[in-house]
Amino acid sequence: MKASQFLISTLKEAPADAEVVSHRLMTRAGMIKKLGAGIYTYMPMGLRVIRKVEAIVREEMNRAGAVELLMPVVQPAEYWQETGRWEKMGPELMRVKDRHERDYIIQPTSEEVVTDVARQELRSYKQLPRNFYHVQTKFRDERRPRFGVMRSREFIMKDAYSFDRDAASAKASYQVMAQAYRRIFDRFGLTYRAVAADSGAIGGDLSEEFQVIAATGEDAIVYCPESDYAANMEKAEALAPRKPRGSATAALTKTPTPGKSTCREVAELLKVPLDTTVKSLVLATDELSAKGEVVGTQVWLLLVRGDHDMNEIKVGKVPGLDNGFRFATNAEIVEHFGTKPGYLGPIDLKKPVRVVADREVAVMSDWICGANEEDFHFTGVNWGRDLPEPEAVADLRNIVEGDLSPDGKGVLAIERGIEVGHVFYLGTKYSQPMNAVYLDESGKPQPMEMGCYGIGITRLPAAAIEQNHDERGIIWPDAIAPFTVVVCPIGMDRSAEVRAAAERLHDELLEAGVDVMLDDRGERPGAMFADWELIGVPHRVVISDRGLKEGQLEYQHRRDAAATKVPAGEMLAFVKGRLGA
Amino acid sequence: MKASQFLISTLKEAPADAEVVSHRLMTRAGMIKKLGAGIYTYMPMGLRVIRKVEAIVREEMNRAGAVELLMPVVQPAEYWQETGRWEKMGPELMRVKDRHERDYIIQPTSEEVVTDVARQELRSYKQLPRNFYHVQTKFRDERRPRFGVMRSREFIMKDAYSFDRDAASAKASYQVMAQAYRRIFDRFGLTYRAVAADSGAIGGDLSEEFQVIAATGEDAIVYCPESDYAANMEKAEALAPRKPRGSATAALTKTPTPGKSTCREVAELLKVPLDTTVKSLVLATDELSAKGEVVGTQVWLLLVRGDHDMNEIKVGKVPGLDNGFRFATNAEIVEHFGTKPGYLGPIDLKKPVRVVADREVAVMSDWICGANEEDFHFTGVNWGRDLPEPEAVADLRNIVEGDLSPDGKGVLAIERGIEVGHVFYLGTKYSQPMNAVYLDESGKPQPMEMGCYGIGITRLPAAAIEQNHDERGIIWPDAIAPFTVVVCPIGMDRSAEVRAAAERLHDELLEAGVDVMLDDRGERPGAMFADWELIGVPHRVVISDRGLKEGQLEYQHRRDAAATKVPAGEMLAFVKGRLGA
Repeated sequence: MKASQFLISTLKEAPADAEVVSHRLMTRAGMIKKLGAGIYTYMPMGLRVIRKVEAIVREEMNRAGAVELLMPVVQPAEYWQETGRWEKMGPELMRVKDRHERDYIIQPTSEEVVTDVARQELRSYKQLPRNFYHVQTKFRDERRPRFGVMRSREFIMKDAYSFDRDAASAKASYQVMAQAYRRIFDRFGLTYRAVAADSGAIGGDLSEEFQVIAATGEDAIVYCPESDYAANMEKAEALAPRKPRGSATAALTKTPTPGKSTCREVAELLKVPLDTTVKSLVLATDELSAKGEVVGTQVWLLLVRGDHDMNEIKVGKVPGLDNGFRFATNAEIVEHFGTKPGYLGPIDLKKPVRVVADREVAVMSDWICGANEEDFHFTGVNWGRDLPEPEAVADLRNIVEGDLSPDGKGVLAIERGIEVGHVFYLGTKYSQPMNAVYLDESGKPQPMEMGCYGIGITRLPAAAIEQNHDERGIIWPDAIAPFTVVVCPIGMDRSAEVRAAAERLHDELLEAGVDVMLDDRGERPGAMFADWELIGVPHRVVISDRGLKEGQLEYQHRRDAAATKVPAGEMLAFVKGRLGA
Repeated sequence: MKASQFLISTLKEAPADAEVVSHRLMTRAGMIKKLGAGIYTYMPMGLRVIRKVEAIVREEMNRAGAVELLMPVVQPAEYWQETGRWEKMGPELMRVKDRHERDYIIQPTSEEVVTDVARQELRSYKQLPRNFYHVQTKFRDERRPRFGVMRSREFIMKDAYSFDRDAASAKASYQVMAQAYRRIFDRFGLTYRAVAADSGAIGGDLSEEFQVIAATGEDAIVYCPESDYAANMEKAEALAPRKPRGSATAALTKTPTPGKSTCREVAELLKVPLDTTVKSLVLATDELSAKGEVVGTQVWLLLVRGDHDMNEIKVGKVPGLDNGFRFATNAEIVEHFGTKPGYLGPIDLKKPVRVVADREVAVMSDWICGANEEDFHFTGVNWGRDLPEPEAVADLRNIVEGDLSPDGKGVLAIERGIEVGHVFYLGTKYSQPMNAVYLDESGKPQPMEMGCYGIGITRLPAAAIEQNHDERGIIWPDAIAPFTVVVCPIGMDRSAEVRAAAERLHDELLEAGVDVMLDDRGERPGAMFADWELIGVPHRVVISDRGLKEGQLEYQHRRDAAATKVPAGEMLAFVKGRLGA
């Protein structure tokens, strides 16, 4: 490819709304162009990356036995009504009416449609297992689209769906996909981690996120450097501490803490470590009548250590809170605790509440909590002596660095990642309501066991950039670079030798199957190099008159600090060597 | 590819709503599956065809210097408001509101967005000419979607847009595309015709449709077998007849024609040829005030020969009718003609009307028309003698077989076609309202001259089938067949020799770059052959135990009446020879 036949469109400045480096660099490198909130045009340079990502995904999906089809972008609401998602999904589901006032959605994903395909096509156990996938445009009407293509509304996703005769076979199909995903992410040339994720109501461990590691990632990933353990923050279990609860040594004391309503402020005031304090979270659950009216309300007090963060997903698994909960109203708090938030605690309640303690809180002694009176805290609090043992003890908190690894093989570390893939065992969540059944050996209909497997095709390049960039621009891994090699001739207009050498090397690389760009725009060296460093092409060859006189060309990898001189006649082999080709 | 790793899903019966053969065969061959009205899933077998069509289109677009990008499916209304299409387009434009009640459309085409790209990216004459294209999902909310993917609502289209500095350059860019389209359609292996099309308000001849010839086609194509002339029905001009008007020989006679209101009925009653009758069409144009109120109405009478059909596009070009017209109301007709439709004519009017005669009518003598009295017609009508010469003479009618070719090289023939491509010179229709300007050599802003170029990617396979099928199923041209060759082993389960020979040939063909399918399903020969004849794979090799004993395999092209025996060792070369590979 020659630059004169392509569109190279770099910008000095990033748009004002670009908050993250990938958004800034993709815009500046001319890869994406914003059309509206969360809606982007993929410009020629960006589309090349997308196509390479797609090609790798397709090859590995096909290799893993998945069969490609293409399901529609606009889907009739009736399928979504069958599974209840038409009602359940919020405004993120983009709804449309056609000229006849019939309801449609713009697909955010295709479980319903693929399940409809399966219930028509897969009628016998002999046709199972089966995996269908497509690469298609999707839309999710995000409340606050941002970060460029990282959290856009329109995006391209590869979604695959497996159909199996039973759970055991479905789990085998899941493992085939989990392995294919590892091959895909290996081929992208990115540093990533497959982390265990929460599988919601289905249970089991068959849910993994594929996270591209990047300091700027939205997600915290918990992993054990001494083992294979990795999970996302919701999934990673905080084990019960090994040490037993200490004995009470201090007396329960109501201590004035005027204006100090947070654990941190109280600890500073009292000059004690933050991990001797306990914070309170007040929730409520409503009991509903058959008509859906609230006929009773239970108030809950959840306790975690002052230096820990509550994890809502974990809270949602506590028995009694696992059918939905809400934050208590101020009125409910005053009614039960007699004071406003900031000074709450489990002692001296006005009305009984159900107390759940985090595993760490359950082994604390001589701790500090609110006294249910404004501007006062209790110090020297001890379970059993000053208040009853908690009604329940549970894992309520986020992991912190140094926590024990759930696999017993060391302590946990935390890093940040960007989720670009997800494999998920679905069970019969969709096949049951849609009556997607096959006939088993005895002719009996059985619901198909399903799995779903997604890769954010347009999100991946952004994640790759968050991981691979420097102050000059993007640094693409070879596999997904818009061009693998750029040939930069200096003074091509003035020197027939430079032009001939550049065109020869371009043609030879092309012939060798290398995705090469010849920059024949006639830009000055500084501007030309800055463009390609911004765009992030990993391998660069510079051809100059002076070099040619010495019989030398210059090679530089985007990560190299300086160029390497290579004899002109050896450059082709040299570059191929660097490409591992 | 092996059948066991793919989805082959043929049906005995076509769906009840499948009116055309391509819809029936694509459904029966398992290529498409209906999800809703005009919305289809492309099943694995169908998607392979789509991908081959896309690949050919991309190669030739790139070869012609066009650069690929990808514009969004969901587009903010504001761009469409800039050009006025938001208001002008009817319910075919699918409109959506997002969660913030902002307006969007699901793109039916992308002139607005690409013009926005151009006005940002192309600022100097040095950057022109430029051609951007994409292959993207589109939606058109057809009132009556039908014919499967031939007239679906969701579809995939390749649309390209050229940007030039002036009309001369734009016309050169148009010609580059017109040539690229010829290469594309040649490569598809289809019989097609590039026909001149009406270019609407822009004028000039720079609009061509690419029509795949098929007896079942929706469009009538006019062409001259003795020359290159080809045009669609709207564009094809009916020349003025060479013969002069004959002399009046009959007297004007009011003749009773009780209950005979059509030309055909009158001709039969009077036992005269249909081409001696003239039919009347009454139109009206309204004069509007600045406020848009109707302040005056003009009634028009248009006359065409009884055996001819009026062409509305041509009528719309008559001076005075070229700013819009409507059919006259019954009240207006009675007011001007004194009777109801069926007996209208240009003689004995109650109030004056403007009379426009088709070129053929203008040279008629002794003709027949309604007498403006129920159940009566005039015979022996002659211009000048019985009524004034027509106020205007124009080409108002559709071409019929045998009309003179406009290029003077013979007479015209008519065949039917399916439009799958269109190249169109746009001028500044979009660049003007969107202010897409470049700076010329003197730094003066100039609007860009544009062209647009579409190919219906998902429509093309249907058109190919309408042209290429028989009672057993589809017959694909090699270039766009889902598989080029199918290897059908008979009794593969029973015979290790058959299995080995089949797998060897499959692997060798694959190695040679041939898109081959090995049917390893173990179906009986009859069912297996019927499937592949329905699916339409052009080349078939049958491997049987009996044949192997004789050292023979059987080759049969989908169009061959019988199989050809080929020595087993020569089959690879034989097939490659048949593929021209």
